[in-house]
Amino acid sequence: MNEIIFLQSLGNLLTKNGMDASVLSDDCAHIETPSRDIIATTDMVIDRTHFDLSHDPLDLVARKSVCVNLSDLAAAGAKPMGLLVALAIPRSWSQRQSQDLMTGIVETASLFDCAILGGDTNSTKGPLTISITALGFKHWRGTPKRGHASHGDLVFVTGELGGSFESQRHLRFTPRLRESTWLMDHINIHAMMDLSDGLASDAKKIAIASKISIILDKSATPIHRDLDFRSTHRLEHAMCDGEDFELLFTVSEDEAIRLEAAWPFQTKLTQIGRCERGNSTVFLVDESNHKAELTWTGYEH
Amino acid sequence: MNEIIFLQSLGNLLTKNGMDASVLSDDCAHIETPSRDIIATTDMVIDRTHFDLSHDPLDLVARKSVCVNLSDLAAAGAKPMGLLVALAIPRSWSQRQSQDLMTGIVETASLFDCAILGGDTNSTKGPLTISITALGFKHWRGTPKRGHASHGDLVFVTGELGGSFESQRHLRFTPRLRESTWLMDHINIHAMMDLSDGLASDAKKIAIASKISIILDKSATPIHRDLDFRSTHRLEHAMCDGEDFELLFTVSEDEAIRLEAAWPFQTKLTQIGRCERGNSTVFLVDESNHKAELTWTGYEH
Repeated sequence: MNEIIFLQSLGNLLTKNGMDASVLSDDCAHIETPSRDIIATTDMVIDRTHFDLSHDPLDLVARKSVCVNLSDLAAAGAKPMGLLVALAIPRSWSQRQSQDLMTGIVETASLFDCAILGGDTNSTKGPLTISITALGFKHWRGTPKRGHASHGDLVFVTGELGGSFESQRHLRFTPRLRESTWLMDHINIHAMMDLSDGLASDAKKIAIASKISIILDKSATPIHRDLDFRSTHRLEHAMCDGEDFELLFTVSEDEAIRLEAAWPFQTKLTQIGRCERGNSTVFLVDESNHKAELTWTGYEH
Repeated sequence: MNEIIFLQSLGNLLTKNGMDASVLSDDCAHIETPSRDIIATTDMVIDRTHFDLSHDPLDLVARKSVCVNLSDLAAAGAKPMGLLVALAIPRSWSQRQSQDLMTGIVETASLFDCAILGGDTNSTKGPLTISITALGFKHWRGTPKRGHASHGDLVFVTGELGGSFESQRHLRFTPRLRESTWLMDHINIHAMMDLSDGLASDAKKIAIASKISIILDKSATPIHRDLDFRSTHRLEHAMCDGEDFELLFTVSEDEAIRLEAAWPFQTKLTQIGRCERGNSTVFLVDESNHKAELTWTGYEH
């Protein structure tokens, strides 16, 4: 598609969504940062790897490309500010398809009060590839990093886990921005991340970065109803399927009491384990108090 | 390639280049912005579109992926701060190839005093796709936008134009950051942009954004020596080949005198035209003062 026509239609789309279309006239975006530091993250999604255009609708693909980035901002306790969007569009696509994709991206950004700051469109002989960089404002309390868990912390997760890819939940999920903002405002969060590769693999990342061990309670794992009708391996699916985009975080025992008393959302909140002194290992403990190292590995992109 | 191995080798690479490797342990980068606004830009390059791995060396491909973004920062008068790098790597690649690519990206960033702030690596069935977002600090004077040219301005270009793609100059060019910083420090720049699609097409963008017409002087166009041995259409090549990554900018007549007297670089500086009241048209004027609308169009990505 001709770049000028594309930019014009994108300009109309931005204006329609109450956004500033003047960003399109230059190659760079200017971000005013009065006194707040910036948080930046980038995530790329590719057809046949992160979605499948042979059965996934384009508006949901667009939604996912934005939401995976917003989920990273949520994990950093940041408030979304804007996106830079780089597209590699298959040569065979019609102008209509490109516009539908951009519409989906702009409308999703708008839904989460996030501007489009810039972009780049290219054609490719390969699969549709959407690369988004999200910028957000840092919370005044700081950024809860993976390496901030302490021994004695309790481990929490939002929502329910597993079956996201098969149920198309990975295309429809809502990034936990509201929950993250509330947590940052009210609770002293130690470590936090979003679950993209699966609890087993992502808990290990916190254990490694924080140099502690994590003991997960087998019976506490919130298993998603998308997995209800499977007879076997439900726990393994919940822990390893990945693409949950829920928040995994740790707080001290005292904060945990305040947290559970004050949690204001319908979104489920579950204490799933605790942190102990140790050698960056993740253990699973069952009802009879048998403790075994968790060796399941999560989904690798 | 396993993500953890990849991140470890990338961590070593960052440390070796004197960069902060701690950015790799979380999904988001934290950018301190004491009192300076941020400039952001994104550019994606794809095998067989922006380079060709069947004959272009990987280190130069990496260099280009960084430099096209830094050239956008130069055009905005900004000082590079850091990059977010998203990669779609062909499934057939060896670990060695991926590492060579990252080495090229990190070393180029280092060369221009630019940090790696974050990234995302994926495998693809399609061609190598490198998507980089560059963040920079705004110059205290502001940002010279495409829409800031005034009638009466003189139009300048750095360097020489044409033949960039065929000579592989598009892989080796040096983004005009030094020149841009000097210009911002010393000269009141009106409009500025970098030449990526070719002078004919890019001058039109300034004409449209500034609602003026631009009269280019046919005999003044600095034709690159890469075009020396072509017998015909040299001017058209210089104006339309694109991928020059030189600075195109406008200043008032008074500033132009100061500029030409003070220009401290070996990089060629040429006054190639002037801005007039008009209807966003670009004209070419020849030695006999014949003026005709420039209808050549530049390279479209």
